[in-house]
Amino acid sequence: MSAMNSRRYAMTRRHLLGAFAATALAREAAPRIDGKRLRDHLEHLSTFGRPVGGVFEDGVSRVAYSDADIAGRAYVMSLMEAAGMKPRIDAAGNIFGRRAGTDESLPPVLFGSHIDSVPHGGNFDGDLGSLAAIEVVQTVNEARVATRRPLEVAIWSNEEGYAFNNGITGSRAAAGRLDAGELDAVWNGMKKSEAIRRIGGAPERIAEARLAPGSFASYLELHIEQGGTLDRAGIPIGVVEGIVAIDRYNAEIRGYANHAGTTPMPERQDALLAASHLVIAVNEIVRREPGRQVGTVGQLDVSPNAPNIVPGLVRLVIELRDLSADKIAALGRQIQARAREIAAQTNTQIEIRPAAHHDGAMAAPEVQKSIEDVCAGLGLQTVRLPSGAGHDAQAIATLGPMGMIFVPSVGGISHAPKEFSRWEDCARGADVLCQTVLHWAA
Amino acid sequence: MSAMNSRRYAMTRRHLLGAFAATALAREAAPRIDGKRLRDHLEHLSTFGRPVGGVFEDGVSRVAYSDADIAGRAYVMSLMEAAGMKPRIDAAGNIFGRRAGTDESLPPVLFGSHIDSVPHGGNFDGDLGSLAAIEVVQTVNEARVATRRPLEVAIWSNEEGYAFNNGITGSRAAAGRLDAGELDAVWNGMKKSEAIRRIGGAPERIAEARLAPGSFASYLELHIEQGGTLDRAGIPIGVVEGIVAIDRYNAEIRGYANHAGTTPMPERQDALLAASHLVIAVNEIVRREPGRQVGTVGQLDVSPNAPNIVPGLVRLVIELRDLSADKIAALGRQIQARAREIAAQTNTQIEIRPAAHHDGAMAAPEVQKSIEDVCAGLGLQTVRLPSGAGHDAQAIATLGPMGMIFVPSVGGISHAPKEFSRWEDCARGADVLCQTVLHWAA
Repeated sequence: MSAMNSRRYAMTRRHLLGAFAATALAREAAPRIDGKRLRDHLEHLSTFGRPVGGVFEDGVSRVAYSDADIAGRAYVMSLMEAAGMKPRIDAAGNIFGRRAGTDESLPPVLFGSHIDSVPHGGNFDGDLGSLAAIEVVQTVNEARVATRRPLEVAIWSNEEGYAFNNGITGSRAAAGRLDAGELDAVWNGMKKSEAIRRIGGAPERIAEARLAPGSFASYLELHIEQGGTLDRAGIPIGVVEGIVAIDRYNAEIRGYANHAGTTPMPERQDALLAASHLVIAVNEIVRREPGRQVGTVGQLDVSPNAPNIVPGLVRLVIELRDLSADKIAALGRQIQARAREIAAQTNTQIEIRPAAHHDGAMAAPEVQKSIEDVCAGLGLQTVRLPSGAGHDAQAIATLGPMGMIFVPSVGGISHAPKEFSRWEDCARGADVLCQTVLHWAA
Repeated sequence: MSAMNSRRYAMTRRHLLGAFAATALAREAAPRIDGKRLRDHLEHLSTFGRPVGGVFEDGVSRVAYSDADIAGRAYVMSLMEAAGMKPRIDAAGNIFGRRAGTDESLPPVLFGSHIDSVPHGGNFDGDLGSLAAIEVVQTVNEARVATRRPLEVAIWSNEEGYAFNNGITGSRAAAGRLDAGELDAVWNGMKKSEAIRRIGGAPERIAEARLAPGSFASYLELHIEQGGTLDRAGIPIGVVEGIVAIDRYNAEIRGYANHAGTTPMPERQDALLAASHLVIAVNEIVRREPGRQVGTVGQLDVSPNAPNIVPGLVRLVIELRDLSADKIAALGRQIQARAREIAAQTNTQIEIRPAAHHDGAMAAPEVQKSIEDVCAGLGLQTVRLPSGAGHDAQAIATLGPMGMIFVPSVGGISHAPKEFSRWEDCARGADVLCQTVLHWAA
């Protein structure tokens, strides 16, 4: 078929889709993604950062700005080109690929995810949403569907924020939310600005990475759940209500380090004993009221940390998450009050200081509804749920309507080599993404 | 005074002492140590391993086998020579100095301590007993007292056991209690056998360091209490009843590491939450029955130890101490039982394995009584107490009657730069050592 014929056919399809967009007929006629190809691409991407001598199931270490990340990005750009898009790297190192709409004056539908990983992470977190986004464009191309709005795929840089330990970078730059001085941070002997340059960004022009509010019709992101709710319930699609707000506190418990043999029990000021009460208190306070809020002490360091010395100092991090920022603020106050009691009872000092607050982000109701409509058309059961993990969608939601599609994580495992989502679930999620994109692009 | 006159004078004194040994007159006439000189020597010794640019109050890092240890040992040997003793280094690196008795066929009175320290330790732990022992010989020399039994000063090597982390070395070698293969241990790139050679020992002949049971009349050690009992009570001398037995357990708590944002509270297998319950249980079980037993969780490591990951694994060390080995064994069983309950309640696995057992050592009643008699003669109040810390006396007690003299540690602080014992208390302790040595040497 010549290019001319191809364009004519696409136009015909577009008119058909335009006429029947809201009907079951149109949904049935909508193109379906190629699950086998999506899997092939995910398996190929997994080789960049794979442990030496390992296999797919051994997971991946593709930390942002690493050689593996750069190689993975090159692969992703080659897939964009194969799908007819010309990749563009913005000043923050985000990769964009655009497919023109029939009305280029309209803001595009924006969709994508990230391909960087935590160290010893899995092959689905971010990767699925990224490669599914490219697969959507490929599918739409092959079906010769013309869309009114342009389609724009985004592969955000450094989502995991493991590198430099100062947060998601690419999508926050797009939202104009980078912190002052953030690019001067040094990690592994490298400045963040150099790291951004390393992946093709232009740190001196970082402000140009900013997207204007309203510069897209909607932002859609397909992602693995990373929790076990869908897998346990046997539901293939989760419709994200929002991304939780996070409060993080640094707690410092000061007792008095002393000889474990010579210090009688009543004389001790045992910082670890006090810290243990605090860990339990965090758990109890978070669990004693209904809701899906979570509270975690995931990091705890004892000093001097020797078997024969009563611990003099414990530092720990308390993290609280919920869709409601007010709720976690109230939990934080309850923990503070309980800590004062523990300090008095254990003859220690406990200081709990706010260390970080991440705003939550609600998914737009109309985007949630469009995902549910698409799933209904595909005969897929859905459930609404919060995202307990942070995502690029969080920052992008400050610029326009956002929605996320979750697929099950087997056993709820994530950020680990065993992270896995069934291939049929991946394909279903990509189909839901594809049709939701087409809905918004119409 | 000529040497001849000197010897005659000494013989006269000896006869006097022999005649009036048990009388108040003899005690009053007994020589007194030079507190000023003892302090000078302690202050000089503190310079070997002192932090760069620091002062006495900044403490000392004189880890066994280090350059600072070697320099400190050279200084101690020079003090021995100044006190008329010819230092001898045995195969284990212990330093001995001998003053002849009038009956060289009799086993000597053995007394001393150690001069190695923990990193960032204080200037009294071991040092006081070591330099007071040399001061005793100097004092007896100056008073021209002849003793029936020889006097033998011992400066034991590597008491702290920080180097190689496999226990006290010098006194255990003397007691023939080194473990098989112990000298092959590697620490900081150095074999323990090389380390012993570094301080003048002969590891290939380590068995020759062994002392025969009964090869001394009694072993006496002056030491700081390292706890706060004497200081709080305002009592200048503690008479040690024995050195506590120690049981150490390694506990491993296995939960499941998972994303802190996406794992609902009821689904968690939080190893740190379980560990916190265990830390509290150890404290409660140890405290709920009367006695002076102590129990400590001093070391605890969380994995993966990140704020946003539910802890999957915690390793911690439980240490129990009491004069009664049976008592701590029973406490260990109670902790095991409670750990099984905690594991069931927290959906974790807890394994608690015995890691080390150190026999306690009782001080000989006749040695305790002799110390109390000396103190009564000097008008010094005493109290009997256990030693919660390990000492060289522990190993040496397996060979013959042992006793220890404690002086107050201000605030009970030890193994820290702030470790301090008042100079007058140090002098009192050295006087008690001196007269107890003379009692046993008579």
